[in-house]
Amino acid sequence: MPVGTQATVKAVGQDDLCALGVEILLGNTYHLMLRPGEELVGALGGLHRFMAWERAILTDSGGFQVYSLAQNRRITEEGASFQSHLDGSRWLLTPERSIEIQETLGADIIMAFDECPPSKAERPYLEESLARTTRWLQRCATAWSRGRSALFGIVQGGLDLELRRRHVAEVCAVELPGYALGGYSVGERPEEMHASVAEVAPLLPEDRPRYLMGVGTPVDLVTAVAAGVDMFDCVLPTRCARNGLLFTTQGRLNLRNRAHARDERPPDPACSCYTCRTHSRAYLRHLFAADELLALRLATLHNLHHYLELMRGARRAIEEDRLGAFAAGVRVREAGRVPASQ
Amino acid sequence: MPVGTQATVKAVGQDDLCALGVEILLGNTYHLMLRPGEELVGALGGLHRFMAWERAILTDSGGFQVYSLAQNRRITEEGASFQSHLDGSRWLLTPERSIEIQETLGADIIMAFDECPPSKAERPYLEESLARTTRWLQRCATAWSRGRSALFGIVQGGLDLELRRRHVAEVCAVELPGYALGGYSVGERPEEMHASVAEVAPLLPEDRPRYLMGVGTPVDLVTAVAAGVDMFDCVLPTRCARNGLLFTTQGRLNLRNRAHARDERPPDPACSCYTCRTHSRAYLRHLFAADELLALRLATLHNLHHYLELMRGARRAIEEDRLGAFAAGVRVREAGRVPASQ
Repeated sequence: MPVGTQATVKAVGQDDLCALGVEILLGNTYHLMLRPGEELVGALGGLHRFMAWERAILTDSGGFQVYSLAQNRRITEEGASFQSHLDGSRWLLTPERSIEIQETLGADIIMAFDECPPSKAERPYLEESLARTTRWLQRCATAWSRGRSALFGIVQGGLDLELRRRHVAEVCAVELPGYALGGYSVGERPEEMHASVAEVAPLLPEDRPRYLMGVGTPVDLVTAVAAGVDMFDCVLPTRCARNGLLFTTQGRLNLRNRAHARDERPPDPACSCYTCRTHSRAYLRHLFAADELLALRLATLHNLHHYLELMRGARRAIEEDRLGAFAAGVRVREAGRVPASQ
Repeated sequence: MPVGTQATVKAVGQDDLCALGVEILLGNTYHLMLRPGEELVGALGGLHRFMAWERAILTDSGGFQVYSLAQNRRITEEGASFQSHLDGSRWLLTPERSIEIQETLGADIIMAFDECPPSKAERPYLEESLARTTRWLQRCATAWSRGRSALFGIVQGGLDLELRRRHVAEVCAVELPGYALGGYSVGERPEEMHASVAEVAPLLPEDRPRYLMGVGTPVDLVTAVAAGVDMFDCVLPTRCARNGLLFTTQGRLNLRNRAHARDERPPDPACSCYTCRTHSRAYLRHLFAADELLALRLATLHNLHHYLELMRGARRAIEEDRLGAFAAGVRVREAGRVPASQ
């Protein structure tokens, strides 16, 4: 699932996303509430119609961006008050407001308003934060209209397994259409995250979607799938693409590298995306060197295709009972990191 | 004909250009000789293959960018020496080098190396410049291999009709596949340009393509078509698009205008382009307000479609012997400049 921030996935169009087979987009509540404002989007028929996207949309609660982008934020029992990173204006986001905004946007999946505590938070603060997130979840569930939008709860708890287990029990005590794991990929080592997800994901109800938020690399994804995770979101494929870094079936490829200047091969000879079917490494390297806009779209198309193929591959591997071998193959190719000149 | 500078048309892909029905692209010799260098493009099979574009390509001679972009340029009988705007490196472009570069790039149409004198040049300098451009044309014709690339000559002469007529005679004395008018749209009033082109274009051979370089607005185009011009190139539709200015059948539309914030209509209700079929003014206005990359592609797609439709319309009008009425209609809609809120 690619990340769309301001009602768009950076550098590609909805036509591109349809052609890639994208089935669900993520909209950021924080960005959309500030600009153009959920009232405007709602008045124009909701986010699907506003951005001309008929397939599914998930919105986050706004909480994560409040913690990562907004200024002078203050968390109280009521909610989070903060200043917009755009113009310094003062805003308040509460569980009730977050649900109201997300339902006005009209997303198919909406997320509970939680706190994602700093990765280095001390245990007393973590416990206080988790208890508040649980109370906020109950307020979200009460505010939720149980209409079109399916509300997912979010489990926090950092890398502390005892806290994670306790929070799973609290969150899953609220009957909801799906459950998510938040607070990963916030600075910890990948191995720490993998180990924790392997313990925690199986504790979530088996008959509901399990969503690992903000993750991750190809290895993160197949590892989490092996632990029972069903859904992901991440800026990594699109952000890396805009920096010229491609994920390929032979490892990673930096298109800015001078070694590609005369290389007529496609970025990934085994890839069937538009970029790989059409363009050479030499051409793409030239576009990045010349700071041409087309470079961003072509690289983004490839990385999205690569990630979607990765997930399709994982799905097939599960059906054919060979997920372990599939994940091992992904680990090998990512660890190999084929030299740029190959 | 849209302008492609560095082996790309800014903000759109070759797939977009094909779908729009674009039949010919322009490559800038100045940009391509500096980066990635014509030797590299030639070694990789030429510009068509390098940029994966099977349809026609025209390259300019490099002269115009030398005069408009390069630093410390000096014009002698031999050619133009200058410093790259990228890194200050010293280069020399001569008629022979320009033809060699363009044939190495492998364009279908290549342009003679000329001087485009400043619009305010005094008559003595103009006469000297025109005589040199004529000598350069003869050197270009000698250097030209008469292979795949069709060489076009360029008539200069500013707004001085006597000089223009004299230069037409000198340039057309060299038997070539096509002829162009340069030195227009360099600061003069549109009416001055229209009047001059109306006098000069009919003097070019009727059985060869007549190409008006660097022009122009929709009114410029239909006016020049009425004067007998067949071909154009211009940055206007793509550059305006990237600034949020759309050309529509109802006049011009500035997508950055707040008046569009809640407007669900397509930019041009009479337009059949992807952007108008898919997106509202409100959504496009949001993308421009949020500085999203997708805005540039969607606006560029529309303006290119609009210009291509304009030229298709002019072609049909000629076939149906109603070009005068067609041009009058374009003048009315462009003069009307429908207010942004409509």
